[in-house]
Amino acid sequence: MQKIKKLLVANRGEIALRIMRTAQEMGISTVAVYSEADRLSPHVKFADEAVCIGPPPSNQSYLLGNKIIEVCKELNVDAIHPGYGFLSENAEFAGKVSDAGLIFVGPSPKSIEVMGSKLAAKQAVAKYDIPLVPGTEEAISDITEAKERAAEIGYPILIKASAGGGGKGMRIVEDESEFEEQMNRAVSEAQSAFGDGAVFIEKFITSPRHIEIQILGDQHGNTVYLFERECSIQRRHQKVIEEAPSAVVSPKMRKAMGEAAVGVAKACNYYGAGTVEFIVDDKLNFYFLEMNTRLQVEHPVTEMITGKDLVREQILVAEGNVLSFAQEDLKIHGHAVEIRVYAEDPKNNFLPDIGKLVTYRRPQGPGIRVDDGFEEGMDIPIYYDPLIAKLITHGENRQDAIGRMIRAINDYRITGIQTTLDFCRFAMQHEAFVSGNFDTQFVENYFTPEKLEPVFSEEERELLAALAVEFFEKEENRINPTHPANSIPSTNWKNRLL
Amino acid sequence: MQKIKKLLVANRGEIALRIMRTAQEMGISTVAVYSEADRLSPHVKFADEAVCIGPPPSNQSYLLGNKIIEVCKELNVDAIHPGYGFLSENAEFAGKVSDAGLIFVGPSPKSIEVMGSKLAAKQAVAKYDIPLVPGTEEAISDITEAKERAAEIGYPILIKASAGGGGKGMRIVEDESEFEEQMNRAVSEAQSAFGDGAVFIEKFITSPRHIEIQILGDQHGNTVYLFERECSIQRRHQKVIEEAPSAVVSPKMRKAMGEAAVGVAKACNYYGAGTVEFIVDDKLNFYFLEMNTRLQVEHPVTEMITGKDLVREQILVAEGNVLSFAQEDLKIHGHAVEIRVYAEDPKNNFLPDIGKLVTYRRPQGPGIRVDDGFEEGMDIPIYYDPLIAKLITHGENRQDAIGRMIRAINDYRITGIQTTLDFCRFAMQHEAFVSGNFDTQFVENYFTPEKLEPVFSEEERELLAALAVEFFEKEENRINPTHPANSIPSTNWKNRLL
Repeated sequence: MQKIKKLLVANRGEIALRIMRTAQEMGISTVAVYSEADRLSPHVKFADEAVCIGPPPSNQSYLLGNKIIEVCKELNVDAIHPGYGFLSENAEFAGKVSDAGLIFVGPSPKSIEVMGSKLAAKQAVAKYDIPLVPGTEEAISDITEAKERAAEIGYPILIKASAGGGGKGMRIVEDESEFEEQMNRAVSEAQSAFGDGAVFIEKFITSPRHIEIQILGDQHGNTVYLFERECSIQRRHQKVIEEAPSAVVSPKMRKAMGEAAVGVAKACNYYGAGTVEFIVDDKLNFYFLEMNTRLQVEHPVTEMITGKDLVREQILVAEGNVLSFAQEDLKIHGHAVEIRVYAEDPKNNFLPDIGKLVTYRRPQGPGIRVDDGFEEGMDIPIYYDPLIAKLITHGENRQDAIGRMIRAINDYRITGIQTTLDFCRFAMQHEAFVSGNFDTQFVENYFTPEKLEPVFSEEERELLAALAVEFFEKEENRINPTHPANSIPSTNWKNRLL
Repeated sequence: MQKIKKLLVANRGEIALRIMRTAQEMGISTVAVYSEADRLSPHVKFADEAVCIGPPPSNQSYLLGNKIIEVCKELNVDAIHPGYGFLSENAEFAGKVSDAGLIFVGPSPKSIEVMGSKLAAKQAVAKYDIPLVPGTEEAISDITEAKERAAEIGYPILIKASAGGGGKGMRIVEDESEFEEQMNRAVSEAQSAFGDGAVFIEKFITSPRHIEIQILGDQHGNTVYLFERECSIQRRHQKVIEEAPSAVVSPKMRKAMGEAAVGVAKACNYYGAGTVEFIVDDKLNFYFLEMNTRLQVEHPVTEMITGKDLVREQILVAEGNVLSFAQEDLKIHGHAVEIRVYAEDPKNNFLPDIGKLVTYRRPQGPGIRVDDGFEEGMDIPIYYDPLIAKLITHGENRQDAIGRMIRAINDYRITGIQTTLDFCRFAMQHEAFVSGNFDTQFVENYFTPEKLEPVFSEEERELLAALAVEFFEKEENRINPTHPANSIPSTNWKNRLL
């Protein structure tokens, strides 16, 4: 067991700050790395030391694993936390970190590698009796054989190109009479798109929900599940609202999913925090999709209902500690909802918006948590995921958590940029969400831009903007890199001031 | 049962905001009242409607019960929440509210009255077997009789003037040999100060702790206790740091104190949220001191460990609902600590400081809650209690909650005014606090100003101040009452903007 004394966070924005906060609470000193675009970011100022590792985009800075390992050596860092995205699921990087004598706060390179490949993951979990979406295990090109397999699986079925991606060569077949025609089309599309006409056939899940299980394992073979997160509300196939627990998961189903998730983790000798994603059909059958071998964006809802700090647990496991609690110690306390506040325009198909956070005032109060990486006056850089903040509310039950979320959204003041706040309020007030009766098609089924009510009136928005513009004549000084206060040092912000 | 639709909060600052947030989450519209000194306060802007009721000080505005009741009639308000302080423990006001056909969110006038009198409270609880500090029940002036009673009670004893207050005529007697001399002095001091030489004799509690029990009762006879709050860290006999649970209360003691507190509540037919205060001696005997018939400043620590929103429960009880949970449903989850961030100078005997919040940036992150009533750029008015904010942290255990508190204090940025932040960090790091082995004399025993380490260096403070001064050239516009954005309407801020 090795106590971590100095931790480098190989990430940016809200997740870098969130990780460093816990590290500081544990008495661990923190090192930030940053790109030139992020030089004024809160995560840089928060860290005990900060090092600029290059310009944007990410492949010239945040993705430079070797450079980050060099920084660790220079600054006597013990451990690297990769956050999510960037290098977090890069098995080669995790291996290099270990080879350099550093602790990687995450699973072993081998676990990352296995779960990074759909095929290897399926093979690994095979002996653990994990439910998978029924389908052919191998690519198929013979129509007669394919039809037989489709009949076994049961309609509706999905035909998808073996070599495919992006929906090309993908066909939904409702019943057997359409099969031959659709199979022919799929094969010919696959042939022309990928030069390979082979296809997979699998059950098409109607009205799917995305529900995932948080797991946590130590390096001594102990693994627990921290219940589920419901992540079905998505736009552009990306999560935007999450909650825990799910409105549709019964205690029995929770136990079954939890145990399946622990099985997946055991199948790849997993340790650290990880997430096992399932697709759930309208009869509440669940099927293993994939495992994310890192902290998830939506981890706070699990923290709210379990009282566990997942980053703290990650660090303790990385140090080699035995998990300090068992499955039976974990209980669900209340209900938590998270919305992702993205710089996106819901009126324009959720396309990213860029610009300055002219006004930025966070909601406050009991049961409210805001994880963000920006301050008023900052620009949302174009180079990265346009996540401004995660707003999380916790209540005694689902209704209270939703009521608190609506209040918090009403209290959030952001101008200068379009955000998903209005959309999230729409969702919180929509009957399908309130009843819990929704699936991943929520946006497509129910949302049109004219249904948005602005969080605050245009008049108030203009008033806020006008006030803010006055500030910015001076505020610019704060953001201006030539201002002495903004000459962020390459290392050690705090010492510079002493 | 009457559903509250519109609630007036007869208070200001953080508690007014905190109450209105919960009301809004429950779908109740909110009315703020404010003094001219508070016209730009967040509680005024947050409310759906806001009415100026007069100039400072409080006896010309916040204490004008009749005027507040008039406002209720004008605006069709159903209910009044008094917060703490001001009119919250004024039985006459509570009676007038009911007489006007309004709901008072609090106990009955009779309960307030009984618990507002030390003597009536003692008489009320007599048949409930509540432990009281041993002492004479009636005032005494005969020395021989007094000496006999003192011997029965056991030394050390405290002699205090029957008519007294402020420490006048108060004497601690360590053993019998000093008794006559001290009694004579106490009687003569009392005689000259109050014109009445009668004194009470009671046991002097050495190394006392202040521990209180939160109770909650409905109007149907159900009463539960929500465990204890440790409030022993005080300066100038006023609480400054609180936590729940207490480091020294065992499950058995908790149950005994909880049941005693429920007994006190039953003794005055109490409903709503209330707090029963106990003094605890160095052998962990506890004695009833008094009951506060309102929400306490430090209620958030109880909310953090129980998951209950006490304001929500107050409102539900006031509407006539039956408590939705029983004693056995309540469990302690983790540990919570609250510090009070006062505009006071710990280097100068905690005297109030006044001025402008030049920089004001709140800490954030998991397990952190800030309840405040100010924004950057605002002045701390001289007319009211100098509480800027309450900073509350929640962790899995006491150590985690304290670690999180130190991190949060380090993250709080306040310039322009002296605060208790540095002192609170000193306390969090002091061995007596960390070990749990402290009493109400913590400040006197351990604290001297030279022990303070500033939360941030003088250089950083100057830098923040310099940056802020730049803002304020423009910021003044925001605060300037003649600026159009600041012409707060007497009613309905939100509608004004539409």
